[in-house]
Parts: sequence; structure tokens; C-alpha cells
Amino acid sequence: METLVLGLDLVGTFVFALSGAMAGVRHRLDVFGVLVLAFAAGNAGGITRDLLIGAVPPAAIADWRYLVISLLAGVATFWRYGTVRRLQNAVLLFDALGLAVFAVSGALKALAFGLNPVAAVLLGTLTGIGGGMLRDILVAQIPTVLRAELYAVAALAGAGVVVIGEALQLPTTATTAAGVAACLALRLGSIYLGWHLPTVATSKSAETHRDPH
Amino acid sequence: METLVLGLDLVGTFVFALSGAMAGVRHRLDVFGVLVLAFAAGNAGGITRDLLIGAVPPAAIADWRYLVISLLAGVATFWRYGTVRRLQNAVLLFDALGLAVFAVSGALKALAFGLNPVAAVLLGTLTGIGGGMLRDILVAQIPTVLRAELYAVAALAGAGVVVIGEALQLPTTATTAAGVAACLALRLGSIYLGWHLPTVATSKSAETHRDPH
Amino acid sequence: METLVLGLDLVGTFVFALSGAMAGVRHRLDVFGVLVLAFAAGNAGGITRDLLIGAVPPAAIADWRYLVISLLAGVATFWRYGTVRRLQNAVLLFDALGLAVFAVSGALKALAFGLNPVAAVLLGTLTGIGGGMLRDILVAQIPTVLRAELYAVAALAGAGVVVIGEALQLPTTATTAAGVAACLALRLGSIYLGWHLPTVATSKSAETHRDPH
Repeated sequence: METLVLGLDLVGTFVFALSGAMAGVRHRLDVFGVLVLAFAAGNAGGITRDLLIGAVPPAAIADWRYLVISLLAGVATFWRYGTVRRLQNAVLLFDALGLAVFAVSGALKALAFGLNPVAAVLLGTLTGIGGGMLRDILVAQIPTVLRAELYAVAALAGAGVVVIGEALQLPTTATTAAGVAACLALRLGSIYLGWHLPTVATSKSAETHRDPH
Repeated sequence: METLVLGLDLVGTFVFALSGAMAGVRHRLDVFGVLVLAFAAGNAGGITRDLLIGAVPPAAIADWRYLVISLLAGVATFWRYGTVRRLQNAVLLFDALGLAVFAVSGALKALAFGLNPVAAVLLGTLTGIGGGMLRDILVAQIPTVLRAELYAVAALAGAGVVVIGEALQLPTTATTAAGVAACLALRLGSIYLGWHLPTVATSKSAETHRDPH
Repeated sequence: METLVLGLDLVGTFVFALSGAMAGVRHRLDVFGVLVLAFAAGNAGGITRDLLIGAVPPAAIADWRYLVISLLAGVATFWRYGTVRRLQNAVLLFDALGLAVFAVSGALKALAFGLNPVAAVLLGTLTGIGGGMLRDILVAQIPTVLRAELYAVAALAGAGVVVIGEALQLPTTATTAAGVAACLALRLGSIYLGWHLPTVATSKSAETHRDPH
């Protein structure tokens, strides 16, 4: 299971680092700011997961491959921004894949550290959405993770499928594939078919109402 | 003391989750974004406290009751937003109560883990204000915790009273009640009687002066 | 090495707390909000480092000197804002010094906890830039750390010099001095001589292009 988590993690790191680097370029950061944002987006989810289960130092810090992969994504985006931007539909697919693999790897690692099923689902979801949240916080925006259609719920579904599969003692490769597929299906359904969740219809006055705190 | 910390934590989680969910609805997040914000606001303070004292996995992750209570608050806010909003003065009271119980529970848990009194007061304050800070960061606003009248200072007072009471070996239930009362008194005095701390009177040019970094 | 790390940490805490307090005053926070921001800016880097290497409770929580030094910087800024602001060029120098000492102390502490050289450089950089990042996030701005000329790269250079020096088993005081000097040189060269890194020249349409997530 360790090899599986590592492989999923590295794939997810690369695609999220791409999305972080693109956000950095769009906000006119210099090359090193772009690299920092690529590292943050690619690794914040995994680092949070490792801190929460007590696996310190986190893999993303202790294992140089996470750093190298993040820097590769950042440098590629910086020098070939035009190309990456034209491939943006592909990036959207990769981002969905990253979400899926992080949600699944987060849930698997939490189970391996002896956490209970509910906690494992929660950690998988956090691992999936953590990188994108930090990326958007760093460019001073409301995390699109919170607004995008079926984003967090897709991560939840992926983590949930894996945890249920492990509880039923199904083969880990099968549950992993099913978890990734479930997350991808929801996210792609939302992107291409417009699936979405309801929002509260707030009046204009409610919208601008001052926060009571 | 464990039962006491758990009880205080669950009450604080519920009321802060309510405030997080309301912020989510105001920013037009979908139902799952609202739930994520409810969980973040309700549990960020406690998770930070547990990470800082080395209690991993944090109670808010490992114990399903925190999740369920956060989701309950989120769902209630989502489906009954109009009602919750009309009860906003009540929510303001609950928020003050949440601040008080988190500040006290944070200080008590830090003492139970062998931290010194100064560290326990600091951790109690962080536990109290952490959830509200993350809630506001996630919707891209300056944390109202930093601006609201006597907010952080009320948390400090609550944590301080508990730590002094424990140092004097007074009964824990009495010091807990006194800590909650001290925090509530300062916060409610600020809300209803306009108590406040001074700010620096900066000129317009100082205000718009560019940050040197 | 412990005394060295402590001394560097306290110097860095003071100068970053100054910068946090000034940001707080500029955003019209009350005196306690200013103190919270001073503490956050002065200690976020060190706390993050300690969490990531498993040194809990973090020194900034467990050792009262960090708190006292942060509060001193906050109170000084609050009561003598005009003076501190006139000394802003000096503050800029102090900030460069804080960046240098935190980057070096972060790398040294990571090595002392047995992390590998790449991880130590990464941790040193994070320790250096962490405080400034949280300061800017808390006032809802894109971290200037990500935009300022040669900021993160200067931290990286300082951490890198120390790690290389330790690998070559040079005396720690000499590598520390060299690391601080390398970071300072890059940062001051950027401030006074205009050294900078390239950015991608994005067209207006690229700039305003919607984030795909």
C-alpha cells in the first residue's frame, strides 16, 4: 500500500503544482514566487494529512521527489505558459485526476495509521481539497474549491468508496480504482454535464448584510 | 477533566460551525461548500490546539461527534437560513459562548498535556480565535476576530482565569465557570455597552502607505 | 547549536513582529489585534518548522520569551507608530535580517532533528517566509513574500549555504555567518540595486482569464 500511496501522491502533486504555478503566473509573480505557489498547491494537502495523523516529518518535506516534481511543474508552466494555457482543458482534467488521487491516497494513509473509517474519509477529503484551498488563499481569493461544482463532494465520494472497500476487505487495487473513478465521474459530470448542488437563494440585502462577528 | 473538555468542545464546535455556515451562505457557496466552511470554523481552533500540543490525530478528526455536530449546524443553516438569520442576535450570543468555551477548553487541555501556564494561556486564546480566523480567511476577508471589539482579549481573559485557578488548585468546575464568565462578560460588555480598546489614529497617507516588504 | 538557534530565533521574532504590528496598525486594528498580528508574523515561521519536524509543543508556544518579545514589538509599534514608520528603512533592513536568521535557524534545527539536506533547505526557506506569508494572509493580501524581489530566493540561498557548510563539516558559527550574509546580500541587492527575477509577460486577457478550477 505504501508504493500505491506514493505513486498516487506524486501524480497528484504534479497536477496540482501545475494549477498553482498557473495561478502564480496569472498574478504576475516572479519565477520564484511561481515555484513557491507550485510547491504550496502541490503539497499542502499531503502535508496537512501527515501533520494530522502524526507522520512527521511529512513525506512532502522528507522525500526530495515531491520537491523536484513540484519544481518541474512550476518551471514548465513558467517557461511554456502559453502552451500550458492552451492546454487548459487538459489541465482541468488533470486537476480532476489530482483531486481523485489525493482523496484516495489520503484515505488509504489514514487507514494505514489506524484511524477509524469516518476519520479516514474526512482526511481523504481534506487531502484532496487542501492544496487548492491554500493556492487560492495565497492569491487572496475565496477558494474555488468551495465554490466549484461538486468539487469537495467528489473528493468525499472518492475517499468514501476506498474506506468502504477496505472495510469489506476487497483488494486495495480494486477499491483504489473504484475510488478514483467515483471522484472523477462526479467532477467530470459537473464540468461537462453541469451537475451541481443547490445554493441558498439569498436576497441582495442578505448578501451585503454585515457579518455579526 | 476529559469529559469537561469534550463537552465544552462540542458546544463550541456547534456554535462556531453555525457562524461558518452563515458566512458560507452569504458568499453563495453551494451546500457542500457551506458544510466545509461549517467544519472549518467549528474545528480549526481545536485542531490547531491539538497539533501544537502533539495530540495527534486531533480529537476533531478522530472523534466522529465533532464531524456530525458540524454537519448538523451546516445543514440547519442551509435549510433554515432565513430563521437562523432572524436569530442573529442569538447567534451573536452563541458565538460569544463558543469563544468562551474554546478558550477555556484550550487552556485546560494544554495544562493536562503538561504545558507551562504562559503557554496554556496562549493556547487557550489561539483555540478560541482560530476557528473564526480560518472562517474569514476562507472568504477572503480580514478576520473580524482581529477587528471586533474585545474579541481576542476576551479569549485571553477566559484562558487566564482558568490557568490562574488551576495554579491555585481551586476546583476545576469553579475555575471553568469563572473563565467562561470572564470571557462572556468582556465580550458582551463590548457588544452591548460598547467597550473597546484604542486604535492608532493614522492619517489617510499612513493608511494608504505601501507595505515595505 | 541550540543556543545559536535560540538567539537567531529571538532576533528574527522581534523584527518580524515589528512588521506584523505595522501591518496591523495600517489596517486600523485595535491594540490587541495589533498584538495578535505581531505574534502571528513573528512566530508562524518557527511554529510551522517545529510542527513539520515533530518538535511539539513548538518553542514559540512553550518558551515564554517568544511571546514576550512579540508583545514588546507590538506595544512599541502601537505606542510609537510615528517613530517606527519614520524608521521604515531601518525596518526594511531588520526584515531582511529576520528573513536571514530564520532561514538559517530553520535549516540548522531541521539538520539537528536528522532531516536530509534537501528537506533542511526546504524547511529553512519555509521558516524564513512563513511569518510574512501569514501576516499578509491575515490582512487579506497576496503575500508580498511571493511578489517582493528575491525574497524567497534569498531565504533559499541562506538555508542552502548553511546546509552545504554543515555537510562539509565546517564550523557551525562560520556557516551560520555565511548563510546570513548570503541571504542579506541577495535581499539588499534587490532592495538597493534593483536585482530581480523575470516574470512571464502575460497579456491583459491572460491576466483576467478565469481560473479553471
